[in-house]
Amino acid sequence: MAKVGIVGAGPAGLLLAHLLHREGIEAVVLEARSREYLETSPHRIRAGVLEWGSKEILRRAGLGQRMLEQGLEHRGVYLAFDGALHRLDFPSLTGKSIWVYGQQFVVQDMIRLHLAQGGEIRFEHEVLGLEEDAGGLWVVYRTPEGATERMRCDFVVGADGSHSRLRGQIPGARLHQKNYPFAWLGILAEAPPAAEELIYASHPRGFALFSMRSPTRSRNYLQVGVEERLEDWPEERIWAELSERLGGVAEVRPGPLLEKSLTPLRSLVLEPMQHGRLFLMGDAAHVVPPTGAKGMNLALCDAVLLYRALLAYYRQGEEGHLLRYTQEALRHVWQAELFSYFMTTLLHTPVDAFDDGLRTAQLRHLAESPHLQRFLAENYVGLHTSGRYPGWVGEGVLA
Amino acid sequence: MAKVGIVGAGPAGLLLAHLLHREGIEAVVLEARSREYLETSPHRIRAGVLEWGSKEILRRAGLGQRMLEQGLEHRGVYLAFDGALHRLDFPSLTGKSIWVYGQQFVVQDMIRLHLAQGGEIRFEHEVLGLEEDAGGLWVVYRTPEGATERMRCDFVVGADGSHSRLRGQIPGARLHQKNYPFAWLGILAEAPPAAEELIYASHPRGFALFSMRSPTRSRNYLQVGVEERLEDWPEERIWAELSERLGGVAEVRPGPLLEKSLTPLRSLVLEPMQHGRLFLMGDAAHVVPPTGAKGMNLALCDAVLLYRALLAYYRQGEEGHLLRYTQEALRHVWQAELFSYFMTTLLHTPVDAFDDGLRTAQLRHLAESPHLQRFLAENYVGLHTSGRYPGWVGEGVLA
Repeated sequence: MAKVGIVGAGPAGLLLAHLLHREGIEAVVLEARSREYLETSPHRIRAGVLEWGSKEILRRAGLGQRMLEQGLEHRGVYLAFDGALHRLDFPSLTGKSIWVYGQQFVVQDMIRLHLAQGGEIRFEHEVLGLEEDAGGLWVVYRTPEGATERMRCDFVVGADGSHSRLRGQIPGARLHQKNYPFAWLGILAEAPPAAEELIYASHPRGFALFSMRSPTRSRNYLQVGVEERLEDWPEERIWAELSERLGGVAEVRPGPLLEKSLTPLRSLVLEPMQHGRLFLMGDAAHVVPPTGAKGMNLALCDAVLLYRALLAYYRQGEEGHLLRYTQEALRHVWQAELFSYFMTTLLHTPVDAFDDGLRTAQLRHLAESPHLQRFLAENYVGLHTSGRYPGWVGEGVLA
Repeated sequence: MAKVGIVGAGPAGLLLAHLLHREGIEAVVLEARSREYLETSPHRIRAGVLEWGSKEILRRAGLGQRMLEQGLEHRGVYLAFDGALHRLDFPSLTGKSIWVYGQQFVVQDMIRLHLAQGGEIRFEHEVLGLEEDAGGLWVVYRTPEGATERMRCDFVVGADGSHSRLRGQIPGARLHQKNYPFAWLGILAEAPPAAEELIYASHPRGFALFSMRSPTRSRNYLQVGVEERLEDWPEERIWAELSERLGGVAEVRPGPLLEKSLTPLRSLVLEPMQHGRLFLMGDAAHVVPPTGAKGMNLALCDAVLLYRALLAYYRQGEEGHLLRYTQEALRHVWQAELFSYFMTTLLHTPVDAFDDGLRTAQLRHLAESPHLQRFLAENYVGLHTSGRYPGWVGEGVLA
């Protein structure tokens, strides 16, 4: 039987494993962390915005039940600046909506379904590297008992996140990257969110995002300097700053903190995303700043593209899609990088006064211009799902 | 009689002088250069694109006759990239068009009409500074004979260009600026242009612009490094490079060079643009990179705003518009800075590979997205003339 070794049990790796398994193509997932850590650790709390197309991918893959029951459909977002609230209405601007459903829940759903259907996930198996010999391509890993073993694979897929070890296995790859001069201080709190939809607030003191995981759990962020430390931000200071930056357009409701984190903002694209029989997906190949809410969506997009390519190979012996994987994935990746950069520079207070003048002009133009509003909304809900651009990745692939 | 001292006989200074003179408000223009130099020197060749609103300003000011006869109405521009030509059709995207008519011709027309109507322009009068005493505000200047004299004015207007001397007379002003890491090598040639409309060409070797002054005179530009010198670019090399960067989508037709220049690209905004009885207009207060073709348009816009403010003062004793001049002008200025920055980063090849990835994604998105096309077109023909945004500056001011 064919064998695909998938390194990393995040949304991309698990979705690919699940889709291949459904088609009878054996895939083994190797994951360094424990199942419990992935499913419940507050340190694994990640993105929570699903594009219309990502929601469809999960639904069509049979992974949509809890998402559709417990996730929140959002039909717009707010921008707050100059003391006023501006709403972008997605259905009227794009005909689509988005879903708010935490990445950790997505991962829980995927693990549960994949294991229930007889799929194989080896938790606490740390991948050490790859080996290639006359016998083929091997993934080398350490078992939970500390033994070093190896597994022969037709293909190896690196879905091992932003600190990917497999990223280094693509000789001659170009690493395009940008580091932004700020970080996000994020909190998860047992408190109702400031509004029913996300508020992106631009304030002279810095950007703030008011988001949620559920109607009783809020997820808020503050733009801070890259040099700042968590201990500089006691709970009271965080709530006061959130309230200040919201600028009176809504009310911040404090509550017990469940998690607090600092994340520097950066963009990264690796090109190509493949070498021989190794393919990268998700954060292992590209990182976006979280402002555009694109990270998980790009990961799911990669998984669908690679699934289609592997299916064509195993079913028809067709290698074209595998060879074009980088090219097909990068079309989406660069568009998401562009949008994430646009949102980041639009909303964060920069150091330079000229840059801030441009930014303010753009915010004011956005408030007036239906074209800029449509540009933003269309990218937010997923560019390739609006019917105006060629090909949503799931089209013709997921029934 | 009231007296407005205007420093600089460029489009902004001359238009303001002419409009005030028409209303019987005495304005004296002081200009360091000779009339001949301004009207005919190849070193004075400047911008040549008039927004729909700028064309209207000139026409309504009685300055439109030769422009409407000899200028070229353009109903679109081309973008060239990835080996293909993409046309943006202004009438269908915005309902408006633009006019191509050289700034030097605009200045000739203004000088001629203003002098013919008895207006006063003192050529070869170099302004040295301002003085304020119990008698009022004085402009100090050197006459062509070398004498230092001074003139009392109710108001002084600094329209003395990008190297403005009067810019330094606004205490506490903030100077927002950005220098781009490239320059434009410009040529004027006795040769028909590559196309009937402008071609903005983005090529891996760098940006090139194919423009014209008339059906037999082309004006082309190449993106070059800031460290390059004119002597590095003999005629043959220029034509070969223009042809290469046009990428085969049209034909470059060489001809005798009339002028060759190097211009570094920069953005600059002074805030405020006024102090007491001193007001700045045009390049003296703000500089845009030429990519958006906004320089002369912003200068004319400032002149109309200041004309309205001075008229309200002299007719009704109303000072409100004078006090709000900076605020009203900066709304247009920052929008033009934003668009000029957008066009510059969209079209020029940057050093950084990540920036180039974003740029390529944006060009490709532009080719597909009607929203980005409308954003670009609307800004190009003049945002505040499309009827979608409040107030064209000439509205209610120029009959």
